[in-house]
Amino acid sequence: MRQINVFHSVEVCFTPRLFGDIQTKENYIVALVDILRATTSICAAFENGVQRIIPVATLEAAKSMKEQGFLVASELDGKKLDFADFGNSAFNFTRESVGGKTLVYCTTNGTRALDIARHAEKIAIGAFINLTALTEWLLRQEKNIVILCSGWKNKFCLEDALFAGALAEKLLENPSFCTHCDSAHAAMDLWNVASADLPGYIEKAAHRHRLKKLELDDVIPYSLKLDTTKVVPVFEGKEIRDEQ
Amino acid sequence: MRQINVFHSVEVCFTPRLFGDIQTKENYIVALVDILRATTSICAAFENGVQRIIPVATLEAAKSMKEQGFLVASELDGKKLDFADFGNSAFNFTRESVGGKTLVYCTTNGTRALDIARHAEKIAIGAFINLTALTEWLLRQEKNIVILCSGWKNKFCLEDALFAGALAEKLLENPSFCTHCDSAHAAMDLWNVASADLPGYIEKAAHRHRLKKLELDDVIPYSLKLDTTKVVPVFEGKEIRDEQ
Repeated sequence: MRQINVFHSVEVCFTPRLFGDIQTKENYIVALVDILRATTSICAAFENGVQRIIPVATLEAAKSMKEQGFLVASELDGKKLDFADFGNSAFNFTRESVGGKTLVYCTTNGTRALDIARHAEKIAIGAFINLTALTEWLLRQEKNIVILCSGWKNKFCLEDALFAGALAEKLLENPSFCTHCDSAHAAMDLWNVASADLPGYIEKAAHRHRLKKLELDDVIPYSLKLDTTKVVPVFEGKEIRDEQ
Repeated sequence: MRQINVFHSVEVCFTPRLFGDIQTKENYIVALVDILRATTSICAAFENGVQRIIPVATLEAAKSMKEQGFLVASELDGKKLDFADFGNSAFNFTRESVGGKTLVYCTTNGTRALDIARHAEKIAIGAFINLTALTEWLLRQEKNIVILCSGWKNKFCLEDALFAGALAEKLLENPSFCTHCDSAHAAMDLWNVASADLPGYIEKAAHRHRLKKLELDDVIPYSLKLDTTKVVPVFEGKEIRDEQ
């Protein structure tokens, strides 16, 4: 009997503004990326034992959750807000501060992207620090994949595009995945230009300079290291839990 | 006396959908790109002596101009429409057919992008075939530059991004230009990956395969040749004229 191969597609969306134009319309999982800094920080929190993360899209929602007694991470344009317990640096989420707890997480970019991708079957959180674990989890799902870059205020950003390229390349090593997406090809080629010296390449990224100005760039070397954690945070319902 | 250097910025916008998010807000010229095929065809028409091109954004406007006796180029999803004199292949615009004449031009992508960029001081038409002439014209204007890729139905497309990279690189060789735009950096790096064998690289572009399906891909080798014309078509008011 001849075997019928079922291919799953890999598509890259460079900013949330372009999500409405994706060609993948069904049976898909979104891998959400915001390397500097939301998705890296979410992975760090799970690596340090957070029980679950409840993402919220607005400051008002974050404040209201704080009043209800939750631990809250919230920032605006990269700066921690006064009412919050943390900003969104990965370094805030130590085992002492978040281990075993529920964290409410509000961020300029990442949380809004979660909302935009709400029609996906699942939304997985991707970062360089969980690249291989995420790839293996995605392969097990046997679905189409849309890699959604958060970007910066809807603009294309290098660090997210590079991660998209790294992930697309790893997925496409599996013969059951294919792509007809120009953004995926571009992202993979950029990854191949940058991968030998990722921190050196990221020097030219605009957001890297924004963080430096805000003195929030200490987390960049951590954010660019591959595979320091095996967590796979997945958003389902209204919360994110580790599905590693 | 110390000389004050005035820098002009170079920004790349990968699709019209992202144009509202550009950072350049004033004193700018748009270089509009739709390699396959509108901007290449417009350059070809001027190379072959067309006097002026009137772009229109809708089929209804194109039909109405045809009824008024104009030569009309119009297509939908790459196919010539029955009422029109031409589709938008560069090969239609011979000296015999367009020399000395006015051409009305309606296209799925390019003309709508002209409308989106209407707040620019000028809109210049860019293609690989006029790359150097366009660069020299842009340098003479002493303005900020936004390179606007038409994309395919608002999606990122490789051929336009590569041209954006080639143009950005040439502009930035001039010390009075600078960039803080991640899309510009990405486009230049992609151009450097692809430039040694542009036709080979473009094989993986999705739109290249769409044109092949429609048997409209004969124009691709022509579209990827550098500097075969010195025309610089510029949109001002309601028409495009050559400002070489």
